[in-house]
Amino acid sequence: MRPAERFLAACRNQPVDCTPIWMMRQAGRYLPEYRSLQERYDFLTLAKTPELAATITLQPLRRFDVDAAILFADILLPLEAVGFDLRFVPQVGPVIDHPITRAEEVARVQIADPQDQLGFVLETLRLLQQELHGKQALIGFAGAPFTLASYAIEGRSSKDYRKTKCLMWEAPQAWHQLMEKLAETTLRYLRAQVAAGAQAVQLFDSWVGALSPLDYTTYVLPHSRTILDGLKETGVPVIHFAVGASGMIERLAAAGGDVIGLDWRIDIGEARQRLGRDHPVQGNLDPMTLLAPQQVIAQRCNQILQAAGPLGHVMNLGHGILPDTPVENVAFLVNTVHTLSREVPAGSSTSTQG
Amino acid sequence: MRPAERFLAACRNQPVDCTPIWMMRQAGRYLPEYRSLQERYDFLTLAKTPELAATITLQPLRRFDVDAAILFADILLPLEAVGFDLRFVPQVGPVIDHPITRAEEVARVQIADPQDQLGFVLETLRLLQQELHGKQALIGFAGAPFTLASYAIEGRSSKDYRKTKCLMWEAPQAWHQLMEKLAETTLRYLRAQVAAGAQAVQLFDSWVGALSPLDYTTYVLPHSRTILDGLKETGVPVIHFAVGASGMIERLAAAGGDVIGLDWRIDIGEARQRLGRDHPVQGNLDPMTLLAPQQVIAQRCNQILQAAGPLGHVMNLGHGILPDTPVENVAFLVNTVHTLSREVPAGSSTSTQG
Repeated sequence: MRPAERFLAACRNQPVDCTPIWMMRQAGRYLPEYRSLQERYDFLTLAKTPELAATITLQPLRRFDVDAAILFADILLPLEAVGFDLRFVPQVGPVIDHPITRAEEVARVQIADPQDQLGFVLETLRLLQQELHGKQALIGFAGAPFTLASYAIEGRSSKDYRKTKCLMWEAPQAWHQLMEKLAETTLRYLRAQVAAGAQAVQLFDSWVGALSPLDYTTYVLPHSRTILDGLKETGVPVIHFAVGASGMIERLAAAGGDVIGLDWRIDIGEARQRLGRDHPVQGNLDPMTLLAPQQVIAQRCNQILQAAGPLGHVMNLGHGILPDTPVENVAFLVNTVHTLSREVPAGSSTSTQG
Repeated sequence: MRPAERFLAACRNQPVDCTPIWMMRQAGRYLPEYRSLQERYDFLTLAKTPELAATITLQPLRRFDVDAAILFADILLPLEAVGFDLRFVPQVGPVIDHPITRAEEVARVQIADPQDQLGFVLETLRLLQQELHGKQALIGFAGAPFTLASYAIEGRSSKDYRKTKCLMWEAPQAWHQLMEKLAETTLRYLRAQVAAGAQAVQLFDSWVGALSPLDYTTYVLPHSRTILDGLKETGVPVIHFAVGASGMIERLAAAGGDVIGLDWRIDIGEARQRLGRDHPVQGNLDPMTLLAPQQVIAQRCNQILQAAGPLGHVMNLGHGILPDTPVENVAFLVNTVHTLSREVPAGSSTSTQG
């Protein structure tokens, strides 16, 4: 199978010759060729210049036999498009200079037109589509509304999401208005990404693990569902990923997504039991494992492949690759996943094998 | 029922007149009377002076109708007893000056004699036992071996537990030696706390949520089990608490503990289904909820009480009280839990009511 075909088949619970793999942040700081670009351009220039963003997206594909390319961009770019001042501060990360501090300020948030305001991302995807010729799958992505809202309110990454939760509890009407605007923007953005060539998209709800399941269901789920329902008409597989949400994967699945992305804090076999064995899943190696001896990496891979089974599983890390990850361990992981999963007869643990 | 009786009955899945409540860090910085002591003494002086530690332990009981007193101490005090230099740095928290950096250094870790090296904690418990006259339950506690080991290796609180995980993976034999020493120290410490008057103890595995379930099972569970098995002969209820471990509560229960302490990232009703309805649980209100309007606090309490049911549930927060929590909201929470749970006929959702 060609890598793109393998990845898309796994997302649809169809038979594969071996388990496909890609890694969150596979285009990033652990690669010397990325760091050398980073020395010459600031982050927003890299993300907003289609030729540079496409080059970075392709860097890991020149080194590793990954089955998919993930667009190089940032989950917060749409915040700029809806009216926030976004900066990337070295050693700090993204900073929003004028975050929402009162419920009334939600009125100033716009719904973005992605063609107009995020056109550079769409152009990057068009360039990538030409370069890839359909060999590796091209994955687009966006941040989910809770994750966007938490940056819009906190102004930067937060340990406890205090301001976000307080606005949510104290001004639920304003909260829902904000989430509706962010959901509508995100839906338009992801549809435009598919129109520009993305063959799958991932919705990152990176910080939603800060919430109780009841708060998730009340304040977040309806808005994530708007996006996930609205993407069905595109026909491409949608991966719905959250961190720290092991207690509510059923709720994530209820919000939608063809594939549920898991972090490493759950046994992938137990997750499949809870979701129903036919529900495709992605994950779930602890990114820190790539700093361990290769013997440990291989053991962990094997355990995940055995627990997940050969159908409906996209191998990935449970979160992004760490900046000091040895490049040779990434190559080892990719090869190990393909080799070990070829040894397991496809469909051996299920009855839906064609 | 007297508060102590109510708390102990809930820990043993026996009928109660209403749901008992205590709160992690109920003796702490949100109380003005604690802050005024903090202005006069540094943290280690407060923790190591039995009269001061007992006074602080009792402060919340003078304000609120909580059902238990939790010893004022710190989970890291045993690290000092086993040979580490422990300091508390304002704005930073606990710091270990010479953490373990190589596997060979595990040899320098001692097994502590709690009578000798942690006698001030035992004296605090004896003072408290006299003061409480058995009205409120007296809870002792200790940090679990993984949480202690992570401080011994990282030297301070960590975002990703990188050094800890790397030692664990690269030098498993040294890791297990370290964990055995910490488990033996912790077991002796908790047995001594019971002998000094603790009527229940809580084992805090605060940071174990950083691990995958497989790593937990391989590197941590056997050592937590040493402690939890070894405490059975004391006859007192043991609460086994972890944060961020929603994906592996069954494994925590397999390690042991009469009561499983839950953070807020799981529905308490779903947790009881997974653990078996008869397994007592503690939790699980998001501590941030105490900063919300009282109407929200009451709604969240009600949902937890309904989902948990009236038997085998100790109400608590999912983690410690935040320093800027309004005192009046704590009083509101305690009263609301007692009032709402009195309205639910005890035993209404189970068949084991006497």
